Amino acid sequence: MDILTTPPEVRVWVSERRRRAQRIGLVPTMGCLHAGHLSLVRLARQRAEAVVLSLFVNPIQFGPGDNLTGYPRDLQGDQRLCREAGVAALFLPSAEAMYPAGHSTFVEEVWFSRGLCGDRRPGHFKGVTTIVAKLFNLVQPDVAVFGQKDAQQARVIQQMTRDLEFPVEIVLGQTVREADGLAMSSRNKLLNAAERRQALCLSRALDTAARRLAAGERETAALIAAMRQEISGAPLARVDYAEIVDNETFEPVASINRTALALLAVHVGSTRLIDNALLTPQGHGD
Amino acid sequence: MDILTTPPEVRVWVSERRRRAQRIGLVPTMGCLHAGHLSLVRLARQRAEAVVLSLFVNPIQFGPGDNLTGYPRDLQGDQRLCREAGVAALFLPSAEAMYPAGHSTFVEEVWFSRGLCGDRRPGHFKGVTTIVAKLFNLVQPDVAVFGQKDAQQARVIQQMTRDLEFPVEIVLGQTVREADGLAMSSRNKLLNAAERRQALCLSRALDTAARRLAAGERETAALIAAMRQEISGAPLARVDYAEIVDNETFEPVASINRTALALLAVHVGSTRLIDNALLTPQGHGD
Repeated sequence: MDILTTPPEVRVWVSERRRRAQRIGLVPTMGCLHAGHLSLVRLARQRAEAVVLSLFVNPIQFGPGDNLTGYPRDLQGDQRLCREAGVAALFLPSAEAMYPAGHSTFVEEVWFSRGLCGDRRPGHFKGVTTIVAKLFNLVQPDVAVFGQKDAQQARVIQQMTRDLEFPVEIVLGQTVREADGLAMSSRNKLLNAAERRQALCLSRALDTAARRLAAGERETAALIAAMRQEISGAPLARVDYAEIVDNETFEPVASINRTALALLAVHVGSTRLIDNALLTPQGHGD
Repeated sequence: MDILTTPPEVRVWVSERRRRAQRIGLVPTMGCLHAGHLSLVRLARQRAEAVVLSLFVNPIQFGPGDNLTGYPRDLQGDQRLCREAGVAALFLPSAEAMYPAGHSTFVEEVWFSRGLCGDRRPGHFKGVTTIVAKLFNLVQPDVAVFGQKDAQQARVIQQMTRDLEFPVEIVLGQTVREADGLAMSSRNKLLNAAERRQALCLSRALDTAARRLAAGERETAALIAAMRQEISGAPLARVDYAEIVDNETFEPVASINRTALALLAVHVGSTRLIDNALLTPQGHGD
């Protein structure tokens, strides 16, 4: 596995792979890798001969309250996991390499970035689209894989890719969960034992909504109330948002008549977790 | 010469050229081509086997007062000139092809876009960087050529290309002038005979500044006053801005100690013209 740390190194590496007519896959991450990331690497390897995993805790997607310095890091573990997973190159740039002095260009998606995490974390998605655009231009991947766990981010990146005509196929990997249902996240490492137990309230709330829908409840006000009720049973948890939106437009819906998406952001102790699940009404095949 | 009208057509054309290992050059224009554009095509042909000239009057770079519908057009003449100039493909998209419903992603450079035309035309450079990013991703050129006549635009595009890591070499073509000194511009076609004569005040003002500098005047306040004086001799002309900035930073300078750039925007009748010239102090080689 090659370790690349600067944009020029990436360019040389990429042009060599291109010369050999290899398809390139990209898995952008912020490191502290877990089974969810590894499932994305597998998806990339199914579609490309050479997979680049980028590991960069992108400062411009963190706001003042977002605890950039507290973001979990495990570089040694990450390198080992990447080797085992068959990653061809690990791209580990410094913040200075990605944002040299005078950096003054940003990419912004303005529709799917509204609401949900976009409202709670101003500038977050602008930071995401900017770094992803830079990675796309550096790595020039045929395919890039993102996790459905970050559902809004995935939708924003799909839209950016389409709008800016990036010649990149976007593939989304399903959320990977712990045995008890907790969505895998690097942030889970920040939870203490009590918080870890109560973090289950997110996946339980999503299950509750799905069960209530299956039982015939299509009104999202009732489904959201049921999710909030479930979360209120966890004293260490505090809802940031609990919403149900149309899965295509990402606009809130009053009643579920086609596939919708339930999204949660919940503070558990001092750690903010997100999770989501598709809600498909019975007899609706989409 | 191939005529391409949709993004998918461009992708097919580009991949065919890539398959033949041809270098691709891009000359983005808004049409109504003149000798200035053709000089950019020549620069592109020196650096690439296959030159794409895009002709798109980009609506999102025109503000409410910018007279989008009045922008001059001459599609038949443009096609003939492109054929004669050895353009390999003319890309002529519709606004709907470039901005389909739901388009919601924009690219913005925030340093060099300030001041000058950036202040007078809010959103203009955001429109420019967005369309250029889209063209870069569609055409995937090895080299793209822009005119120094639009000096601020050129600087903004250079910065965007660097910041977003586009694998594109940016080449700037010198301003081409009519025999009497007027900088070539598609907008010159909008001038009536009296305006055309008085439009010479721009290049004369720049010449005056250069002469005064050569005679020892380094204070930009005096040089700007001299430019304004020259323009005030043309009764149909009204200065929009007359500034002198450092050629690297684009910040206003009080005194010229290294290469500076004099920039003018002047309304002549109802047509807004721009022009610029480097001002290099004697004994300074840069």
